[in-house]
Amino acid sequence: MNEEYSQKYFPGTRDELLNKVRKSVSDKRYQHILGVEKAAIKLAKNNNYNVEKASIAALVHDYAKERNDEEFKQVVISKQLDPDLLNWNNFIWHGVVGAEIIKDELNIKDGEILDAVRKHTIGAEKMMVLDKIIYVADYVEDGRVFPDVNIARTLAYSNLNDAVAFEIKHTLEYLISTNGVVYPAAILTYNKWVVK
Amino acid sequence: MNEEYSQKYFPGTRDELLNKVRKSVSDKRYQHILGVEKAAIKLAKNNNYNVEKASIAALVHDYAKERNDEEFKQVVISKQLDPDLLNWNNFIWHGVVGAEIIKDELNIKDGEILDAVRKHTIGAEKMMVLDKIIYVADYVEDGRVFPDVNIARTLAYSNLNDAVAFEIKHTLEYLISTNGVVYPAAILTYNKWVVK
Repeated sequence: MNEEYSQKYFPGTRDELLNKVRKSVSDKRYQHILGVEKAAIKLAKNNNYNVEKASIAALVHDYAKERNDEEFKQVVISKQLDPDLLNWNNFIWHGVVGAEIIKDELNIKDGEILDAVRKHTIGAEKMMVLDKIIYVADYVEDGRVFPDVNIARTLAYSNLNDAVAFEIKHTLEYLISTNGVVYPAAILTYNKWVVK
Repeated sequence: MNEEYSQKYFPGTRDELLNKVRKSVSDKRYQHILGVEKAAIKLAKNNNYNVEKASIAALVHDYAKERNDEEFKQVVISKQLDPDLLNWNNFIWHGVVGAEIIKDELNIKDGEILDAVRKHTIGAEKMMVLDKIIYVADYVEDGRVFPDVNIARTLAYSNLNDAVAFEIKHTLEYLISTNGVVYPAAILTYNKWVVK
């Protein structure tokens, strides 16, 4: 994204946002984030969505990913988020709790952007266009390597809803095949988007 | 089970119970029920559990399976069960709601037997020995034919907890691979029994 930000959604330039993000994550994750931005912008154009908002949401989606558990727990308590969150882990926190950290530290208040961050790990029954863009971009960005990633990419750029369905189904299949913990709300996403 | 019932758990003989069950289900399901009883008695002996209670729970576990949706909905309302049940279907109802029908029609009041019926379709985080026996017997009885049924049988008769874990994992994998609806609480069973 070479255009300037309007400053309606983030009070600064894209370079300033990049700078803040780069300082908050490892270099490997920063490269992933740039890949998600590229995919999100492409998906935004395909779906007639605001490119600037897609860029911002992508750049911040993993902003809090490397915070320690204690910080997430403190935010859950101080912001009076659902106390059940305390039973979970970084995988869940960096989206739902991360949105609060992004709001406070980056001064991003836009509800659509924050919701897209909140929903980017497990999706949701109700997903707006930006939610889907970030959820899918995170899965298909160029740095991702997993079986069937090419199928996921093809779907992403042809039908965003089908890509959401593919992603939640295959994520659950992967988690269960490896005996990984499943966040119960992920099943609500699956039942909504996959089951006919 | 050739022994007589003590009448502590069901007010009648095994033949009388068989008669009531036979009248409540199709012949195909009746044969399945007899298979579950045989497996449940074997599992009860393996796990030092009361054989009579295992026999009764097995014989009644699908007692309500062929009732129509309207009857289940009426029971949910009249017994003030969780109203969310109204959003579900026979697969869920015949266990949780079926236990109420069994209590009323068969005069079975034993909490362990009724709980085993309630939990036999999706298991639970907390499962007592009889819950596990019925859950697993339903999966491995001689009439069952599915890939890996022999692995499930071997596990069932060597380690009941491992069999519970195998069953919930493979049931979820099957459901998701076929785009089937997943009852959210089934994930609680999975997270408890499969995830280390």
